[in-house]
Amino acid sequence: MRDVLPEEAALRDWAMGQILAVYRRHGFVRIETPAVESLRLLLRSEGGENEKLIFRILKRGEKLQSADRPEDLADLGLRFDLTVPLVRYYAHNHARLPQPLKAIQIGPVWRAERPQHGRYRQFTQCDIDVLGVASEVAEIELILATTEALAALGLKDLTVRINDRRVLAAMAAHCGFEPSRAASVFIALDKLDKIGADGVGAELREAGHPADAVERLLALPGRATTPAALRALLGARAEEPAWAGLERILDTVAEQAAGRFRLVFDAALVRGMGYYTGPIFEVQHGDAASSIAGGGRYDRMVGRFIGRDVPATGFSIGFERVIGILVERGASGERDGDRVVLVFDEAMALGPVLALARELREQGHPVLLETRAKRMGKQLQELEARGFRRIGVMGADGTVEWRGPRGAGAGEAGP
Amino acid sequence: MRDVLPEEAALRDWAMGQILAVYRRHGFVRIETPAVESLRLLLRSEGGENEKLIFRILKRGEKLQSADRPEDLADLGLRFDLTVPLVRYYAHNHARLPQPLKAIQIGPVWRAERPQHGRYRQFTQCDIDVLGVASEVAEIELILATTEALAALGLKDLTVRINDRRVLAAMAAHCGFEPSRAASVFIALDKLDKIGADGVGAELREAGHPADAVERLLALPGRATTPAALRALLGARAEEPAWAGLERILDTVAEQAAGRFRLVFDAALVRGMGYYTGPIFEVQHGDAASSIAGGGRYDRMVGRFIGRDVPATGFSIGFERVIGILVERGASGERDGDRVVLVFDEAMALGPVLALARELREQGHPVLLETRAKRMGKQLQELEARGFRRIGVMGADGTVEWRGPRGAGAGEAGP
Repeated sequence: MRDVLPEEAALRDWAMGQILAVYRRHGFVRIETPAVESLRLLLRSEGGENEKLIFRILKRGEKLQSADRPEDLADLGLRFDLTVPLVRYYAHNHARLPQPLKAIQIGPVWRAERPQHGRYRQFTQCDIDVLGVASEVAEIELILATTEALAALGLKDLTVRINDRRVLAAMAAHCGFEPSRAASVFIALDKLDKIGADGVGAELREAGHPADAVERLLALPGRATTPAALRALLGARAEEPAWAGLERILDTVAEQAAGRFRLVFDAALVRGMGYYTGPIFEVQHGDAASSIAGGGRYDRMVGRFIGRDVPATGFSIGFERVIGILVERGASGERDGDRVVLVFDEAMALGPVLALARELREQGHPVLLETRAKRMGKQLQELEARGFRRIGVMGADGTVEWRGPRGAGAGEAGP
Repeated sequence: MRDVLPEEAALRDWAMGQILAVYRRHGFVRIETPAVESLRLLLRSEGGENEKLIFRILKRGEKLQSADRPEDLADLGLRFDLTVPLVRYYAHNHARLPQPLKAIQIGPVWRAERPQHGRYRQFTQCDIDVLGVASEVAEIELILATTEALAALGLKDLTVRINDRRVLAAMAAHCGFEPSRAASVFIALDKLDKIGADGVGAELREAGHPADAVERLLALPGRATTPAALRALLGARAEEPAWAGLERILDTVAEQAAGRFRLVFDAALVRGMGYYTGPIFEVQHGDAASSIAGGGRYDRMVGRFIGRDVPATGFSIGFERVIGILVERGASGERDGDRVVLVFDEAMALGPVLALARELREQGHPVLLETRAKRMGKQLQELEARGFRRIGVMGADGTVEWRGPRGAGAGEAGP
């Protein structure tokens, strides 16, 4: 976990404001869930590898005294994503929520990963989800809203990759994998970018999958194919609604994208979570291999809570990665009016200083008050180095002498 | 802990934006610290009763295996306030921070309290702190900025109460309490509003304080007195810098307040934390007994980390209480342009719907897309009940029929 210094905090605030504004224009509403959820909920969520990374919260008082086994020491945990809490929230509150629900969530999540470059154990996610819409209208809206939000941050070179879990299942069946073991096939396939086709093949054979099924999988056209070509190849096994949905999404979004981003079919796209049931998608920026946003449809998750299925799909922006790109570019969150600093003698009456500060603030300037240092020349240099372009030095009689790049001009009255 | 529904989430976002804007105009900069800190840090922070309410995070893997004693099961905890993390942050990062540092922090904190009306185990605090300013200029700025932020939320009937820990120490010494046991005197005195003078007296006598000291304490003029009167009464024992500071704050702020809020001296004001060293303050709204903001000076906390004292003082807005007041008033966070909903047939081509939505969004309207329900009359009624005043029903040919309170007029082209 890490501290955020003021400059980056300003950038984060700006970025969050941009994303929120776009999502609100798309009709999404903000909701909040607590950081802490019951451990039982988190552990039955099909969160894949992430369930192993949960920070568990120690029971208290008598409950802790009576815990005999190590697994009874904790009954709460920190959320590892925003999707599991959303589903619990929806199940708990659905009678009081608009139907369908188009929710924005922005907040920290925690995973006990080994710290590595650019990965933290606390990080912010920024999710939108549509609950209650079964048709591809939901996916189309998610993709249009998320690409617009990323573009609002200045990220223009975007590629959205899309696949469907049902297509992946059809591919696995076509190759001759055991349907009940399809999940482990997807997990290996998901590593294609990292370990290559040979690595994926080796991992699948080691896991005991039939060698001829592995061979057939690796012989599939994969990334380069079109939905129509893959559909023809898979033949009767492929599910019609999945193909029709993919085509509607690809066609409609391509028409709206109008060169603002690319949308491509990627038969090798998997995504880590176990809970996806339909279309899945990721966004890449430039030629970076890792994604900056991802999501998919999870139609069977709400049903496990309320006994009836509610169609659901979501898109999550990896906020830390996005901020990492903006920091590398030297982007700044400072969008305020000119900052002003007023330097005054600590011993003087504060009335005139505070009155002037008030006047400038009412004009929209952020105003900093600084007591005069013994070496005022050095102090003024440091303030200029910190980016203050208007520095007012207050005299004991209430007069102001303006300094700094924008205040030095003779006869100028002030900012 | 609790879920925040969309309507309250919009109000919270609006309130947070107002507070942030005022604080930024006052030259404060946002910083962020992680939710999780080392347990050792949290436990040595003089956080008073709050240290007992820490949520502890279970160690993982080998570290947990080798934990023999119950107190070794955890080495991390969730923060119980924003002050302790701020001091750790400052100690860790001070070489890269502006000096003095004027920091804004907004974020959740956690306390394992028994749930009760209006109190939650996760709640948001909103703090400003000045690190590196020894003079009362810091307190004056904190009070002016915080009252302005509260006023920006529409909370006009504000009373700021102020005292000084050194005055409290002088009162305790004057009455004849053992100086080393002064903290327990303050803790009892802090309950004056809840249990009355008799209750405070009983608690102090039970704790073994001399009966005559208790009697003298309860005979002090307390809340009704002025600094000058109390100073005369306490005589030579009272600390001069504390009195001079209080008077400077009272005089300067009164001049600036100009009827916008009241500032009063309150010799019975204590505040819970153990770490305060100088002026302490609280804000009340209307005639409610509980405070909506509080803070004070803690000049010796940074020194315990970096070996040299850095003067520090802060003011924390109890965000949940403020939101509670705004919700009771029926305040709304909706400040967007008119929301529009477009109703369309699920089977129709989406191009015209998406193009119109895009145009309206570019004009600043939040636009919701809804597929047409079987009973459209009921659907339109529900949308109106949810506050949509412009409802466009899309025809298959791309035409739009405007409905709703603002869209029903004949010949009107649209929003």
